[in-house]
Amino acid sequence: MRIAVDAMGGDNAPYETVKGAVLAAQQFPDSEIILVGDESAVRRELSSYRATPKNIVINHAPEVVGMEDPATYSIRQKTNSSITRSVELVAKGGADAVVSAGHTGAAVAAATLHLRTLKGVRRPGIAAAMPTKHGVCLIIDIGANIACKPIHLFQYGVMATVYSKYVFGITNPRIGLLNIGEEDAKGNDLAKETFALLSNSQVNFMGNVEGREIFDGKADIVVCDGFVGNVLVKFAEGLAMSLLSTIKSEAMKSFQAKIGLYLCKPAFQTLKAKMDFAEYGGVPLLGVNGSCIISHGRSDSRAIRNAIRVALQLTQNKVNEQIISELEKTDALTASTT
Amino acid sequence: MRIAVDAMGGDNAPYETVKGAVLAAQQFPDSEIILVGDESAVRRELSSYRATPKNIVINHAPEVVGMEDPATYSIRQKTNSSITRSVELVAKGGADAVVSAGHTGAAVAAATLHLRTLKGVRRPGIAAAMPTKHGVCLIIDIGANIACKPIHLFQYGVMATVYSKYVFGITNPRIGLLNIGEEDAKGNDLAKETFALLSNSQVNFMGNVEGREIFDGKADIVVCDGFVGNVLVKFAEGLAMSLLSTIKSEAMKSFQAKIGLYLCKPAFQTLKAKMDFAEYGGVPLLGVNGSCIISHGRSDSRAIRNAIRVALQLTQNKVNEQIISELEKTDALTASTT
Repeated sequence: MRIAVDAMGGDNAPYETVKGAVLAAQQFPDSEIILVGDESAVRRELSSYRATPKNIVINHAPEVVGMEDPATYSIRQKTNSSITRSVELVAKGGADAVVSAGHTGAAVAAATLHLRTLKGVRRPGIAAAMPTKHGVCLIIDIGANIACKPIHLFQYGVMATVYSKYVFGITNPRIGLLNIGEEDAKGNDLAKETFALLSNSQVNFMGNVEGREIFDGKADIVVCDGFVGNVLVKFAEGLAMSLLSTIKSEAMKSFQAKIGLYLCKPAFQTLKAKMDFAEYGGVPLLGVNGSCIISHGRSDSRAIRNAIRVALQLTQNKVNEQIISELEKTDALTASTT
Repeated sequence: MRIAVDAMGGDNAPYETVKGAVLAAQQFPDSEIILVGDESAVRRELSSYRATPKNIVINHAPEVVGMEDPATYSIRQKTNSSITRSVELVAKGGADAVVSAGHTGAAVAAATLHLRTLKGVRRPGIAAAMPTKHGVCLIIDIGANIACKPIHLFQYGVMATVYSKYVFGITNPRIGLLNIGEEDAKGNDLAKETFALLSNSQVNFMGNVEGREIFDGKADIVVCDGFVGNVLVKFAEGLAMSLLSTIKSEAMKSFQAKIGLYLCKPAFQTLKAKMDFAEYGGVPLLGVNGSCIISHGRSDSRAIRNAIRVALQLTQNKVNEQIISELEKTDALTASTT
């Protein structure tokens, strides 16, 4: 397996991306890690290691997409950027998967343009894992598609089922629809029509899920419009940080509580580990013809290594082939729906 | 001032609603609290107090809207319910404001039907206060209107500005638009069109706000579609509870951490108080011709008392008159927009 890593993407690139690639190369000696980016910058990073693992190669890309670049501009103007080149490698058969911690919009645009969608897929979607009481819940879409139609959400349910099965090992994942109430008839037009589509299909649909129920582990997969999903995951990050910093700053006000906080440290560390995006490594862009993992902009080497692990899992388990076959089964139902 | 309280609304009604009304009657002796509900049930509750405050009166309503009743059914079939009767009291001039901890959908439907919208208002919206680093942020709408148009969001900004000014005492509240990025051109059609409307007006618009920025106190008011807002506030509740219960259960695993948790208690209590919906009492349904406060279904007596306080503030400060006048000022701009 050959994984293309966008060496220049992310807040801490190329330092952390190269470090993560080295870690992954050591952990997965049978795979090849292709560092795509400015060759001299990548070589400089690699020179700080005693020996570059033999399964690391460099693929030069002179340009970098900045976080401030609009996604469409980055695709049209910066055709030699590390993200575009990484995706092109996959498109042309030079790599099996791509990992990028850079500009999410640019990665989605490049992947959609160069890889195209999988057979039968209407729109690609990003699936993010959120920790729950009993494990994780996949939220799809979290920002690839902000004008979702019912058929898109339906397909997200099918795609995430395959991903959940082969990457998280969940046998028969339960799909929920993010909604504003539990009752069947609740929600806006998108929710109501998606409810009907999911109910009348053979997928494992368990009904509407409200925001607060995600954490109870009521569903293994929650489908929603990319606008809502994006707002939600960013909100979760902000709220979690805000809660923890309030506890910390309040505890700092008294000597007794300061000691208490110190004694509680293991509990906070478990919580932190549970919420740690680096654990999951990155989120897959499902539905494109190639494996594409998008990592958090603040990814460190561990997150990059884990993202490479997820990319390998996606590829080795032939998740895309499974998606095509699952979608074919639902074709009869969805053919009549736009 | 006369405040109608839906005595039968809420998970702990009529025990907590009556208790809250008694507390409010004592705290605000110049106001009259009208307990609307099953007379014998209300009398039974009142009989447990040494003396019923003189400024409490009962208004009999034989029916109760159940949490499982669809909103429209409750309005059409249960015309003698405590919520409908409470709202009718306001509509007919028998009360200045209404407080209900019952079925939110039924309260919104009854208020919209019987009170009608304020002059110039297209759609009523519910504004909820969310704690931030520096104070609170009003999120509007959180579920009254799940098919928002740009003009609705624009008006929510104007209405929340007036509310924020007169209830929270914020001189010139900053309005933000909930979006998936900071840049002007981000978002779905609703977000883009609302951005243009807010930018071209005289309101204090500070641009897009992402989910994580709400807690930084970047904006005093955040406008969003009711579907997104509803999902968000329920999600916040679930996430906060999940984080705290994880810390607790993890800390219980070791003796040392258990002691630590005990010593940290004041910090957790401050956090809990900050997040406590009962502090804010309830959320206003802005834009109806009358003051309507919707309280959390799990409201205790303190929440009900605080909701009555908010209802009094709304009425005494003539928030509705201010909203009409502020909307008139923006009429020239919005007349061309549907």
